[in-house]
Amino acid sequence: MKKICLKITYDGTNYAGWQRQQNAITVQQIIEEKLEKLTNCKTIIVGASRTDSGVHAFDQTACFDTVSNIPSNKFALALNTLLPNDIRVKESFDVPLNFHPIKSAKSKVYSYKIYNETYSSAMYRNLSYHVAYNLDVDAMNEAAEVLVGNHDFKAFQSSGGSEKTSIRTIHSSKIIKDENFILYLVEGNGFLYNMVRIIVGTLVEIGKNKLSKYDIVKALNSGNREDLGPTAPAQGLCLMKINY
Amino acid sequence: MKKICLKITYDGTNYAGWQRQQNAITVQQIIEEKLEKLTNCKTIIVGASRTDSGVHAFDQTACFDTVSNIPSNKFALALNTLLPNDIRVKESFDVPLNFHPIKSAKSKVYSYKIYNETYSSAMYRNLSYHVAYNLDVDAMNEAAEVLVGNHDFKAFQSSGGSEKTSIRTIHSSKIIKDENFILYLVEGNGFLYNMVRIIVGTLVEIGKNKLSKYDIVKALNSGNREDLGPTAPAQGLCLMKINY
Repeated sequence: MKKICLKITYDGTNYAGWQRQQNAITVQQIIEEKLEKLTNCKTIIVGASRTDSGVHAFDQTACFDTVSNIPSNKFALALNTLLPNDIRVKESFDVPLNFHPIKSAKSKVYSYKIYNETYSSAMYRNLSYHVAYNLDVDAMNEAAEVLVGNHDFKAFQSSGGSEKTSIRTIHSSKIIKDENFILYLVEGNGFLYNMVRIIVGTLVEIGKNKLSKYDIVKALNSGNREDLGPTAPAQGLCLMKINY
Repeated sequence: MKKICLKITYDGTNYAGWQRQQNAITVQQIIEEKLEKLTNCKTIIVGASRTDSGVHAFDQTACFDTVSNIPSNKFALALNTLLPNDIRVKESFDVPLNFHPIKSAKSKVYSYKIYNETYSSAMYRNLSYHVAYNLDVDAMNEAAEVLVGNHDFKAFQSSGGSEKTSIRTIHSSKIIKDENFILYLVEGNGFLYNMVRIIVGTLVEIGKNKLSKYDIVKALNSGNREDLGPTAPAQGLCLMKINY
């Protein structure tokens, strides 16, 4: 038996997220079906991040055990001939049997794309969140930096998460303006349920001058979800990288 | 009567191009239908560029005459409430009655996006042309620059065009590498049928070292389509701007 790691990119628009579900099509299910076709064997694949419905991945990491004699580095090409073109395997390679995509992860990087114009983007409509209001990018960036460090992010989660602790370390958190786009980039050792989307929803309120960076400080202390802005929609979010 | 100019962006994936056709849905048709709904009057809209099936626009210019009393600058918002979200009107404003979107144009800017990786892009699959072969970007850029100037581009057109002359002036022509993307940017006083896609198809062959910049020189002299590379696919092409 060997353990194979896949680096995967997908457009999440047409999927109910990564994780297998009863009544909806997910990325995990599609890949498992194609792996079964390739190896003639039911295969379970474990992803590093359960991206939500509509969330994208530039570089998801996922692993499976197999007794197949297909060379490990050939799985990428073989899967790509079977997968729909909104899911692509970037590479495939052997990892030690004790490697675990979630437990072995050191940090995760997410990006969130805001399209800041009076009109929404026709071309990037499924890859960005449209905000028509003229946003104060400097205020947003200052507030984003407040999140860096080791904090209790209790306020920054939606109900439904199953985490033991809400303490996380954010290594970097910044806003980059790129023409019509405002990009939020965040790296941390882990994220709570909807955490990045709540951060972005709050940063947008700060960009509108309806909240300030002091509301983030307040929420870090209070642990109250109500101190923050709304949860930004899924389609702007993209899992950029898992670092090991 | 007044003449109104629209600045329009669209994702061309689901349309048979700009220009109205008998048996296929086009961007022009969709906008004309919505204008008729708004103004209660059959309206013809003239676009500056007939983008082909699958080609995108970041900034198409189009005009129509109307006797409607809707304020000119309100058409953008009003149309956007009716249009599908892969077509967006960026702005609307009055222009002189003798303004003509094609005849008044001074230059056009197109971009073409190549995704240069072993795997195709899941997220940008409809907005880029996937080339797996590792391309020589410097050779491509040197060849792109050969096109600048006033030339007879007879070799750089597909049959089916209806132009009187094949002489055009290219103001700038360059290749920009941006991570996995190779972007071709070209500005000229006009383009022949499929001209940008033939240029890109040729630049890709040059990037593979199968053709060289001297083949472009040769084709400019010979006028033979056969001296050039294939026509690159539609989905990488985007009309960026019409300058007046």
